[in-house]
Amino acid sequence: MKTDLLEKDGAAAPEALLGGLRRRYATKRFDPDRKIPGGLWDALEEALVLSQSSYGLQPWRFFVVDDPALRARLRPVSWNQAQITDADRLVVFAARKDLGAHDVERYIARIAHVRKVPASSLDGFKQMMLGSLSKSKAELQAWSARQVYIALGNFLAAAAALGVDACPMEGFDAAKYDEILGLSEKGYTAVVLAAAGYRAGDDHAAALPKVRFERADVVEHL
Amino acid sequence: MKTDLLEKDGAAAPEALLGGLRRRYATKRFDPDRKIPGGLWDALEEALVLSQSSYGLQPWRFFVVDDPALRARLRPVSWNQAQITDADRLVVFAARKDLGAHDVERYIARIAHVRKVPASSLDGFKQMMLGSLSKSKAELQAWSARQVYIALGNFLAAAAALGVDACPMEGFDAAKYDEILGLSEKGYTAVVLAAAGYRAGDDHAAALPKVRFERADVVEHL
Repeated sequence: MKTDLLEKDGAAAPEALLGGLRRRYATKRFDPDRKIPGGLWDALEEALVLSQSSYGLQPWRFFVVDDPALRARLRPVSWNQAQITDADRLVVFAARKDLGAHDVERYIARIAHVRKVPASSLDGFKQMMLGSLSKSKAELQAWSARQVYIALGNFLAAAAALGVDACPMEGFDAAKYDEILGLSEKGYTAVVLAAAGYRAGDDHAAALPKVRFERADVVEHL
Repeated sequence: MKTDLLEKDGAAAPEALLGGLRRRYATKRFDPDRKIPGGLWDALEEALVLSQSSYGLQPWRFFVVDDPALRARLRPVSWNQAQITDADRLVVFAARKDLGAHDVERYIARIAHVRKVPASSLDGFKQMMLGSLSKSKAELQAWSARQVYIALGNFLAAAAALGVDACPMEGFDAAKYDEILGLSEKGYTAVVLAAAGYRAGDDHAAALPKVRFERADVVEHL
């Protein structure tokens, strides 16, 4: 079935968007032999790059674990969940550790480069960001983690739109991930995971009706 | 320009997805006279309902502030940002306060209803959720807030796909929001906002090139 999805302004039709969100589910068993086509994976990486964050600061890095040996070492520190080794892709969503002035400087330099403006013209914006980063280390870490979850939501929606199965995962030992993948010395810490690929034919979770509360219990107009 | 967006399996084409994500930006000035068509808004509410969360527990509620008088009261406690009153829609993403056994029971009852299974058959899952909720109040609140940010990411991606402009906003006084909107007595607390509508013709932010770090600086293969 081919359907014309584009409205006149280049946007997707609502039924296509919702179809993807309804079809998706937290995939429990991936088909270990089925790979995400290169073009689709490339789009998903680009969606990661385009993720929204406060100020656009992007306090994150996305580690894609390709090495099967690394995957095998991660599985036991992930409640032995099969998705860790069986999904075509495993993305570790990591937050910047010790977020600070250096990150703001780097971002300002990037804005100046992309928009071809002098960095000095961005000083007001820079001071605003520096001000909002004057929080405790724990508060900053919590804030960065929340930003990473925006990227997770964006990634899951993008995968759903492209018909790629995914499973967000919080059940893992973040400290062990940081150690095994060497994230700490790069200045990052693992926050949440997403496995991506295609569901196995025998994933019984695929057939279960999706459970959401009634809209009236979740969306309230004031 | 009309383009055929659907691949044979009903998924969106990568270029359409990325087009939406590239076109979107944190809209600073909304056109106060331009409304989101009913069908599109309905789809965005459905996307909120379909948002992903850990265990599917949905520890949230989405308050859509329609009342102009309420919007006017919110603006001064939102750094006087114009989006609060000028965007067609304002969504307050709120997290459940004091998340606990009651919420797990309610969710289990919902699963039993939707999947037509006895609640007793879900006891293992229920115990697992209860176990993972045995955290401090502060940890639970932080966890719920992160879940809410998944819903924010999903909403922003959905809006981008549908060609609706949006602006995620953290710059507001959450305690004042809880008070003005009466969220506390409903058992929720404001976490983050999204204004949605259409950009004003004079929003200079619309013309600025999007700034993201290079993919090689954000996505790392291991």
